[in-house]
Amino acid sequence: MAYLDIVTALALLQFIVFGFKVGSARGKYGVKAPAVTGNEIFERCFRVQQNTLEQLVVFIPGLYIFGRYVNPLWAAGLGVVYLIGREIYAATYVKDPAKRSLGFGLTFLPAVTLVAGSLIGAVRQLFLT
Amino acid sequence: MAYLDIVTALALLQFIVFGFKVGSARGKYGVKAPAVTGNEIFERCFRVQQNTLEQLVVFIPGLYIFGRYVNPLWAAGLGVVYLIGREIYAATYVKDPAKRSLGFGLTFLPAVTLVAGSLIGAVRQLFLT
Amino acid sequence: MAYLDIVTALALLQFIVFGFKVGSARGKYGVKAPAVTGNEIFERCFRVQQNTLEQLVVFIPGLYIFGRYVNPLWAAGLGVVYLIGREIYAATYVKDPAKRSLGFGLTFLPAVTLVAGSLIGAVRQLFLT
Repeated sequence: MAYLDIVTALALLQFIVFGFKVGSARGKYGVKAPAVTGNEIFERCFRVQQNTLEQLVVFIPGLYIFGRYVNPLWAAGLGVVYLIGREIYAATYVKDPAKRSLGFGLTFLPAVTLVAGSLIGAVRQLFLT
Repeated sequence: MAYLDIVTALALLQFIVFGFKVGSARGKYGVKAPAVTGNEIFERCFRVQQNTLEQLVVFIPGLYIFGRYVNPLWAAGLGVVYLIGREIYAATYVKDPAKRSLGFGLTFLPAVTLVAGSLIGAVRQLFLT
Repeated sequence: MAYLDIVTALALLQFIVFGFKVGSARGKYGVKAPAVTGNEIFERCFRVQQNTLEQLVVFIPGLYIFGRYVNPLWAAGLGVVYLIGREIYAATYVKDPAKRSLGFGLTFLPAVTLVAGSLIGAVRQLFLT
């Protein structure tokens, strides 16, 4: 269980760092709140953070439910792939949004696997007990 | 408990499908990342996904806390209403955003009920034990 | 544990209220869905809600993990600071976005503390047991 909590905390800290980069780009490129458009590099940083938010909402519940029904170590392993994938995603997106596919896939596939495994595990639990 | 995990997994898969539709609309209508505006249909798909993100963040914690303090089967039942409501919301919003109220209500009301029930349940637990 | 559930339910209700204000501003300033720009006050209300979404995704898992490994009452106390900070954030942001720093800090710092404490607590648990 502690493995999963460590992965969750690291994923949240990674998201916080992406948020810092948005704030920093806001200052650097003069994008004044409440605007979230007007500078290409700011918009890339912002989309990295927003897309990570979308992924986290799927990833975190999936991590724990998969960990309970399927296997906590596999869940943590998929979590490590997710964390590395997000770093690749952020680095490539900011340089060139057209090259974001690899990093996106490396976070999206673990997240989908966690949720699909959660569903199968929970359905089996319901019918086998 | 498995009921609630199944509802959560289905709600996350539904959100993933909404995300796919955003990606597909991005390609179809030529909205290049990081832009999230510029085509009305893309924007509708994107708002469906973003609004679902907002609902999920309320719905998932509410589902489990309500399930623990109030009743897990009622929680799962409200979850089924949520899932159907979101499908109606997505289908109507993409056709005509002005007609999104019914689908919105059918997800918002279950989510608010889950959170309000969670609060009442947790406060009662605190004072009665 | 009930303390943490109460804080979570209050944070979600607060987020729901921010969502109502976005809907209300949408009507008042004539910003038609799917648009999320076009009126400064609407955009401020929308950014308050969106930023709260970003914070909640960090805050809620942090609250429970910190509560389990470190101390549930400290977690709840940080949660109360978060709730007050968000109210200040919302009130100041809508009046003048340039003055949002205090309220932002009062929610961001508790959230970061919860996640950092969660990480330290989970790592210690892993190596000490």
